[in-house]
Amino acid sequence: MSILSDAVNSYLQNASWIRRMFEAGGRLKARFGEENVCDFSLGNPDLPAPPAVAEALREFAERAGEPFAFGYMPNGGFGWAREKLASRLSREHGAPLTAEDVILSCGAAGGLNAFLRAVLNPGEEVLGIAPYFVEYGFYTENHGGRFRAVMSRKDTFRPDIRALENALGPTTRVVLVNSPNNPTGAVYDNEDFRALAKLLEDKSAEYGRPVWLASDEPYRFLRYDGAAPVSVLPLYPYAVCISSFSKNLSLPGERIGYVAVSPALKEKEELMAALNLTNRILGFVNPPVVGQHLMAASLESQVDIAVYATRRRAMAEVLSRAGYEFQMPAGAFYFFPKAPGGDDVAFVNALQEERILAVPGSGFGCPGYFRLAFCVDESVIRRSSAGFAKARERMERLSA
Amino acid sequence: MSILSDAVNSYLQNASWIRRMFEAGGRLKARFGEENVCDFSLGNPDLPAPPAVAEALREFAERAGEPFAFGYMPNGGFGWAREKLASRLSREHGAPLTAEDVILSCGAAGGLNAFLRAVLNPGEEVLGIAPYFVEYGFYTENHGGRFRAVMSRKDTFRPDIRALENALGPTTRVVLVNSPNNPTGAVYDNEDFRALAKLLEDKSAEYGRPVWLASDEPYRFLRYDGAAPVSVLPLYPYAVCISSFSKNLSLPGERIGYVAVSPALKEKEELMAALNLTNRILGFVNPPVVGQHLMAASLESQVDIAVYATRRRAMAEVLSRAGYEFQMPAGAFYFFPKAPGGDDVAFVNALQEERILAVPGSGFGCPGYFRLAFCVDESVIRRSSAGFAKARERMERLSA
Repeated sequence: MSILSDAVNSYLQNASWIRRMFEAGGRLKARFGEENVCDFSLGNPDLPAPPAVAEALREFAERAGEPFAFGYMPNGGFGWAREKLASRLSREHGAPLTAEDVILSCGAAGGLNAFLRAVLNPGEEVLGIAPYFVEYGFYTENHGGRFRAVMSRKDTFRPDIRALENALGPTTRVVLVNSPNNPTGAVYDNEDFRALAKLLEDKSAEYGRPVWLASDEPYRFLRYDGAAPVSVLPLYPYAVCISSFSKNLSLPGERIGYVAVSPALKEKEELMAALNLTNRILGFVNPPVVGQHLMAASLESQVDIAVYATRRRAMAEVLSRAGYEFQMPAGAFYFFPKAPGGDDVAFVNALQEERILAVPGSGFGCPGYFRLAFCVDESVIRRSSAGFAKARERMERLSA
Repeated sequence: MSILSDAVNSYLQNASWIRRMFEAGGRLKARFGEENVCDFSLGNPDLPAPPAVAEALREFAERAGEPFAFGYMPNGGFGWAREKLASRLSREHGAPLTAEDVILSCGAAGGLNAFLRAVLNPGEEVLGIAPYFVEYGFYTENHGGRFRAVMSRKDTFRPDIRALENALGPTTRVVLVNSPNNPTGAVYDNEDFRALAKLLEDKSAEYGRPVWLASDEPYRFLRYDGAAPVSVLPLYPYAVCISSFSKNLSLPGERIGYVAVSPALKEKEELMAALNLTNRILGFVNPPVVGQHLMAASLESQVDIAVYATRRRAMAEVLSRAGYEFQMPAGAFYFFPKAPGGDDVAFVNALQEERILAVPGSGFGCPGYFRLAFCVDESVIRRSSAGFAKARERMERLSA
């Protein structure tokens, strides 16, 4: 009998192929040197945090010896920090948000868990859109829910509203979307979101209870070729926007994010009370103090997105020349090309032989594809060119 | 139908008397001025963080502009930070701990949740000792478990081993203890812990599966009159020590804590893999970057505990003179006296009329008592003297 809970024990067993792949990557780096491996497997932003962050840290250090400098505050974060964030989000989302409409969380992951704990009964369903961030499944099961995903339109990776309509049922409590998308880089447009809001309004009316729309948006700032951002908050009263400063300020390890609710939500006070409670009882207690200071001082800053734009073009060139089929990502820092030969796990293993690390689409509920994270130096992208070509040729020979 | 989950909805409903009391306290402060209310209701340390913390912040600020300064790291924290912590804990606990035996967490609350998620199946039980920190119930229910508490020995508030033996059953997965104790200030001695370890060894053998001993120790550093610290890690292989830097460094809002496992645990690798996983999937992802730097640089520092010792004497004098029955706390910064008249909620309301804020024992599963947190200036303690006397007289008149 395992010393662990059955669920966690089975998570660890099932993760074994991912772990083997990860360990193989580690062995490659150990053998050939880190600089001789092209690692596109991690979404860990390599751009430095903007100068406002270090400045805020220095300023806060001057007050760090005062009583309560690191003290408890309301579970949703300092009032002044929420106020600043709300004012920024009001402009960004075209919705009049106040400090009472947002809570600060330990990253978007913390915000998502606080939200799901607040609204999900055991056995109820969270419906996502594949391919999807694999953690959504865990976050749902943390609270006794079941996660299911319907495939996006494979030509664009944008939502297939008809498929969502068919999949929605009376136990669906939350529809969870992510645009700009990890792993595809797809950006949902205004029409997508309007159709989604309309669908959820209709289904909520049909079932006599609201179906929530949770929009996970940590890549909102990172769009290309003029792709417009869409705000769910003005579109649907049961919408929440969940995001973080992990990507736009390169602060993923600091764990600072937020949940913002639609100002049109009738039961706003009830939801905010619940989010304050769940943020507390899940053990987050409150967002980290220093992260709040960094966030509040850096709301008008962001990393240099021109760097990501350049890398995106470089990656597209490399993939095109090497003969890959892919959609040009309209946002985020990922490509999600088709795996030559069709078997994504076998293909990713073949890439490893070329000292290139990637993640199979199976890890995102979408076999037959693979994910490349281009938050790496442009030189790494350029250097991977020959390896990509060789791996494709080998796989196509094998499957021919 | 509520827009919330049934569980969270019922938490919010049941919390209403606590909220009313809290709001009444807020009204008192608004009406009479904060300086005219003696607030003993909050365990929010008022002593400033030691100078090493600000120093570490300034140093880290110099590197905050480097790539990956705030990047992701392993889910259990930086290897170098875990190594430093392990070396410190090895000395403190008399157990040879390495970086592989500890994970860093978002405070002790985060560590407790990561641990419970790792070991608890739905329906299984966590057994505590009353009075207890009310959050234990939520933490257990987060993971589908049931929390139950057996009363401590009322003469000392130390564990009643016989009562624990009777309460333990085949579904008990964890025994959760907290010494120095919140809310009583009791410190369990070596004999208590040995008896507990022996009991759990016997029960584990009887049930054919280990019963975990989780020791929640954020007040470990704060003991009086020579009370000795006891380490569970060398006593029992299925022991984990969970703690934080919230109290000894006055960093509660920064959310930095840890879980350390017994080096004698056979399945250590399995448990550590699980804790790394649960720390990730619960949405903590990793402990905050800055908190890790502050912790690692301040391991040999702590707040001035002589200040707490002085306040403890002052509070004891005030309570004695005002005719209260109480045990002298041997640790932490709480008193847990008997409520005059016997009705703790009524008594705490009577205290509010004297502009004194306290928490009823009912909030800790122990009606008939009330908790005073003495992490406030000594002048506040002295000033409360007359109010304590009047409130006691009134309640005893009423119940006579």
